[in-house]
Amino acid sequence: MQPMEGSPGRPGLFISFEGLDGSGKSTQLSLLAKDLRSRGYEVVTTREPGGTAIGEAVREILLDPSRPEMAPRAEALLYAAARAQVVSQVIRPALERGAVVLSDRYVDSSVAYQGFGRELGLDDVITLSVWATEFLFPNLTLFFSLDEALRQDRVMYQDRDKAYSAAMAEAGGDRRHGVDRELDRLESEDAEFFARVVEGYRKLAELYPHRIRVIDSSGGIEQVRALTLAAVSQELELLAS
Amino acid sequence: MQPMEGSPGRPGLFISFEGLDGSGKSTQLSLLAKDLRSRGYEVVTTREPGGTAIGEAVREILLDPSRPEMAPRAEALLYAAARAQVVSQVIRPALERGAVVLSDRYVDSSVAYQGFGRELGLDDVITLSVWATEFLFPNLTLFFSLDEALRQDRVMYQDRDKAYSAAMAEAGGDRRHGVDRELDRLESEDAEFFARVVEGYRKLAELYPHRIRVIDSSGGIEQVRALTLAAVSQELELLAS
Repeated sequence: MQPMEGSPGRPGLFISFEGLDGSGKSTQLSLLAKDLRSRGYEVVTTREPGGTAIGEAVREILLDPSRPEMAPRAEALLYAAARAQVVSQVIRPALERGAVVLSDRYVDSSVAYQGFGRELGLDDVITLSVWATEFLFPNLTLFFSLDEALRQDRVMYQDRDKAYSAAMAEAGGDRRHGVDRELDRLESEDAEFFARVVEGYRKLAELYPHRIRVIDSSGGIEQVRALTLAAVSQELELLAS
Repeated sequence: MQPMEGSPGRPGLFISFEGLDGSGKSTQLSLLAKDLRSRGYEVVTTREPGGTAIGEAVREILLDPSRPEMAPRAEALLYAAARAQVVSQVIRPALERGAVVLSDRYVDSSVAYQGFGRELGLDDVITLSVWATEFLFPNLTLFFSLDEALRQDRVMYQDRDKAYSAAMAEAGGDRRHGVDRELDRLESEDAEFFARVVEGYRKLAELYPHRIRVIDSSGGIEQVRALTLAAVSQELELLAS
């Protein structure tokens, strides 16, 4: 198996946000960006798939609910392509000038969704991402963990959109997630698929305990915001020193 | 290095057409499809990138001349994604029912253009395609070889479009290649890039002499058509027996 830890001593700080849709990761990413900017850090936010014009075009293909014929390996390769582009064009340059990069999903999403959800296997999906990113892994990954019943409630009802829109408006960020819309191609998968994805995230947290911090996302937004800030404080100190 | 030969004993016959734009490969593919159909074979034609709705959407991203920022690894992964889709959705099912599949470009294009042209390396690009295709390689690859000055003449002037449109009309095929248009993103590369691509094809022909036949494409269309038919006759006999 390939190693999957960030390189110590690299300039900048790279944090990925992971979890299922409705887990609060995107909301918390926006809030952390705001909190870090208010403390004077240069913060670059990005999302996967997407984060670049090429990546957003790939995102449209990937999430289009009218493409049920998508082959699992094509799906994994498209995610890897969007990742290669955002690493080359956005993340690596930002880290090299010392910025904090916050990515809404990264390699662990591919492992959880394609490796476990699509059953392509952990090793192959990691190998693909190692090649796509030229071995750029996060210093820290925050996995937002939430009881499945509560998560579904947040996805299906207004709670998520309201909270997300409010947080996005506060942070001046992208609001496209926050509008009512039909489920995308991956969100339309069945319960067995999501059970495998959750299992994948659990496995990753076990394998990489130094990189992945599990954040209990069942509390209110401000409560989870405090947990998130606490989780990144040690890395911020290292960055400042 | 990974092996790159078609599996003997597999049903169907898989032939890829390779060469630079203007080498005559697309024209000859259409003519061979017509010739084989008139002899009673089921022939399935496809092209890369493309050949499926998902692949054609990926093709638009890849060839868009307004995307000079495309990272080499993202490019290689997008080609691999389109290939995974066409293999799963079109090529493998066709071969399993015993059809002849003719593909306008396949793995050798990735090795020549991304492995050599973009200098990502032969081994990595082959490994990527082995994974994308679940090890589906052609029984036979026809490489259309043409003196560079003559090729550029065919690309730049009307010869190619006229011949291609006529052949496509005769075969009832796709005419999109045949219209006047601006150069796509890969066609816009410089002479050094194309010199590396040609070197890549030469290297592949050396490495896989049993799979790759070099066809002299400098003659007239009917002359090259006869060479093409002769090159596939042995495989057709094996298929019939």
